Amino acid sequence: MNASAQDPGFDRAARLRQLVAALAPLLPPHALLHQAEQTTPYECDGLTAYRQRPLAVALPETEAQVAAVLKACHALGVPVVARGAGTGLSGGAMPHEAGLTLALARFNKIIAIDPEARTARVQCGVRNLAISEAAAPHGLYYAPDPSSQIACTIGGNIAENSGGVHCLKYGLTLHNVLRVRGFTVEGEAVEFGAEALDAAGLDLLALVVGSEGMLAVVTEVTVKLVPKPQLARCLMASFDDVRKAGDAVAALIAAGIIPAGLEMMDKPMTAAVEDFVHAGYDLTAEAILLCESDGTPEEVAEEIARMDAVLRGSGATDVQASADEAQRLRFWSGRKNAFPASGRISPDYMCMDSTIPRKHLATILLDIQQMEKKYGLRCANVFHAGDGNLHPLILFDANDPDQLHRCELFGAEILERSVALGGTVTGEHGVGVEKLNSMCVQFSPEEREQMLKLKAAFDPAGTLNPGKQIPTLHRCAEYGRMHVKRGLLAFPELERF
Amino acid sequence: MNASAQDPGFDRAARLRQLVAALAPLLPPHALLHQAEQTTPYECDGLTAYRQRPLAVALPETEAQVAAVLKACHALGVPVVARGAGTGLSGGAMPHEAGLTLALARFNKIIAIDPEARTARVQCGVRNLAISEAAAPHGLYYAPDPSSQIACTIGGNIAENSGGVHCLKYGLTLHNVLRVRGFTVEGEAVEFGAEALDAAGLDLLALVVGSEGMLAVVTEVTVKLVPKPQLARCLMASFDDVRKAGDAVAALIAAGIIPAGLEMMDKPMTAAVEDFVHAGYDLTAEAILLCESDGTPEEVAEEIARMDAVLRGSGATDVQASADEAQRLRFWSGRKNAFPASGRISPDYMCMDSTIPRKHLATILLDIQQMEKKYGLRCANVFHAGDGNLHPLILFDANDPDQLHRCELFGAEILERSVALGGTVTGEHGVGVEKLNSMCVQFSPEEREQMLKLKAAFDPAGTLNPGKQIPTLHRCAEYGRMHVKRGLLAFPELERF
Repeated sequence: MNASAQDPGFDRAARLRQLVAALAPLLPPHALLHQAEQTTPYECDGLTAYRQRPLAVALPETEAQVAAVLKACHALGVPVVARGAGTGLSGGAMPHEAGLTLALARFNKIIAIDPEARTARVQCGVRNLAISEAAAPHGLYYAPDPSSQIACTIGGNIAENSGGVHCLKYGLTLHNVLRVRGFTVEGEAVEFGAEALDAAGLDLLALVVGSEGMLAVVTEVTVKLVPKPQLARCLMASFDDVRKAGDAVAALIAAGIIPAGLEMMDKPMTAAVEDFVHAGYDLTAEAILLCESDGTPEEVAEEIARMDAVLRGSGATDVQASADEAQRLRFWSGRKNAFPASGRISPDYMCMDSTIPRKHLATILLDIQQMEKKYGLRCANVFHAGDGNLHPLILFDANDPDQLHRCELFGAEILERSVALGGTVTGEHGVGVEKLNSMCVQFSPEEREQMLKLKAAFDPAGTLNPGKQIPTLHRCAEYGRMHVKRGLLAFPELERF
Repeated sequence: MNASAQDPGFDRAARLRQLVAALAPLLPPHALLHQAEQTTPYECDGLTAYRQRPLAVALPETEAQVAAVLKACHALGVPVVARGAGTGLSGGAMPHEAGLTLALARFNKIIAIDPEARTARVQCGVRNLAISEAAAPHGLYYAPDPSSQIACTIGGNIAENSGGVHCLKYGLTLHNVLRVRGFTVEGEAVEFGAEALDAAGLDLLALVVGSEGMLAVVTEVTVKLVPKPQLARCLMASFDDVRKAGDAVAALIAAGIIPAGLEMMDKPMTAAVEDFVHAGYDLTAEAILLCESDGTPEEVAEEIARMDAVLRGSGATDVQASADEAQRLRFWSGRKNAFPASGRISPDYMCMDSTIPRKHLATILLDIQQMEKKYGLRCANVFHAGDGNLHPLILFDANDPDQLHRCELFGAEILERSVALGGTVTGEHGVGVEKLNSMCVQFSPEEREQMLKLKAAFDPAGTLNPGKQIPTLHRCAEYGRMHVKRGLLAFPELERF
């Protein structure tokens, strides 16, 4: 077992000396940081509520250095936490107090774009948007587009299996990655996946995508590129009832339409963003749907007409189509700025990320309205409606311990209700440290045990990003909430099939 | 470790008595077979060259029986091999001589079709085509369509991650399955995946799909359904040069077109199938491409026009578009009957299943022509060109040991060349027992070791479908061929990026 700070015999200074002595010969001097003022910038990722300074930070520049650092840490039993741009929202890259943060920002080269095969081979530290920028001269782009795409790295996207507004039509990271190259905790080079249709044997690529840096350290990625659509147009629909908007989403999908984006904002969120971006949103609507079509002009014209008919048939009180690209971007401006806009109306907010079957969207929105009363806190809703991926923003003041406590209970209830509706506790932000307890609710002890065994198959000593994603059986016992997955039985009205 | 027939002390009769004594109280009498005349029908799957009678066959009818049988076999250390319809082409369901075949044919109920969510929940023994038939009244169907879809089961499709002619556009089984329910080797119930966008934690669903029954026994599956397109039309293009046909495939994809099907047949195959189906194929062409578009009439008209332009621009000597549904089905009739047609021109054939990056299609076709001379055997080619998934059919006479030997060498060389071109040894048929040696070529010892560890994380004693898919390190050492994955260096002209 690795030395842990929980261990009463843990001597931080001695451990640091030992680690620096082992790593200094392996890295250039500027690539090893261990003074407090150097390591403090690495103390959290985008989930700023959880902070921890690492013992040291390594910034390797070559794969040989990554392998050597991993081997050295493995020999010493020192935990290793890989880190991309630090934009994650669940604390997946939060440092370990007795561990090394392996910062991969310098792996920022685009190795090759192959327009014929429609692939890009890039290092792990390349920014998501930089791939699309490099592919643009060939009329191609990389489809998954998390809100943080200007900053987040492809390595981080793989760790969290990131999504974005386009993933309803184009898939999650998993569906857009062909191959990864990286290193095991022992520092052995491995490649998972293939540039061909499918790799033989067990699908280790799929397992590594979304594993939050707990199975291997990825250094190089081959992604699929897709053709930039000739045209995109967006419909903005107003609804006087949240239930009608939720049902419109289900009706669109049931009609065989797969929008390039399908997003919903409720009234509190619309008010917050309109004040911020002045996009001309309908402030009287209980919910607004943004529904995008992309493709050739013929395809878009035909699809927009069908979307419009379904939205009006579902009770939309108003439907506007973007007349040009400027208007389309204005329609999206509020959605894209929902998080900063929320920061202006409340001192703090907690963003949830649960996902439910689309048909239950209206149900959970009405449930959340009830929870607002129960916990005495407001909640603004913006989400990837087409995917059923909710992002409720619970508004609170972290300086008020009672509000913080109520906010946590509110969030946990949203997650439990999502699981009971047949959903999951995280759609695209990952589990990290934030949703460890919720994993106890979603998975049975046998299922969690299976995940722990898989983790051990890659990392028997448990030194790769320890304490993330998979709660220990002990932790779940302490949390004391029941596994509710099969709790569907408690909601017989939902047992539609 | 499980008792093995290789063990000199293995007493088959005693082992059988012990197994029957343990299972008889758990199953109705008609659901437990152990006489030779009862178990012989189970001695092989679609790969008839490998045969082995199991110790016994259980045909459970309920999940409780599956769990009880697994628990009993686990306690006795008896290997268990799950079986669907037995249509697999790589011997994945070949019995173990000291083991139980768990035949799941009676799990044949369609539990529910949910047209709104566009999902079907079915038992594992439901036939692939039966799902589409049940969904048809709602205008929906299940997209992956292996050639055996009239007979093969969804459980078997999951074990092999099956594809089909539509998987270029609609994805493999992995991309069309939302959730599975099943049992571990110890008989514990587990569920992997979710009806929502993405499940939290490690992606055990993706790992189980394609794991050839080595990690768990799946009893229930929730799949995605897609809307039946309003219209489908097919182009048939002739080429006077295999290289031009291969390059046309790459050009279509590079043009941003994703055909609903994109299949190629070479001249020997065209001659064989024309003689069989009389579809009016161009017998003078060196290669024929079938290229399908589906969608709304507007989408199809626009896409067919673009496909036609790319095919002609790539040097097609003739391009015909299907004028009606009858003609479209006639175009496809030869492709769909390629395997039986081959059976008429040769006493035996061996079907390969390797997959390569599309851009190398022409290269490997020319290589295969060279190999025909080298081994003195003919090879007819039919394949999922859009996926780069080859199905070369090596024609031989199994009664001639020298031909059989040359055929095996020919097949191994195709697989090694595919791996060297950046491909894989199997696209959709699985590894089973047939391609165990080729796995040594595709994967490094570290990568195979990682797969073995994952297997052990689910099944420490190794009693779930032992001896399939993942070769032991010892076996690869005996096979004596090198891992060639990074052998790309030996083909610097291929290092396009």
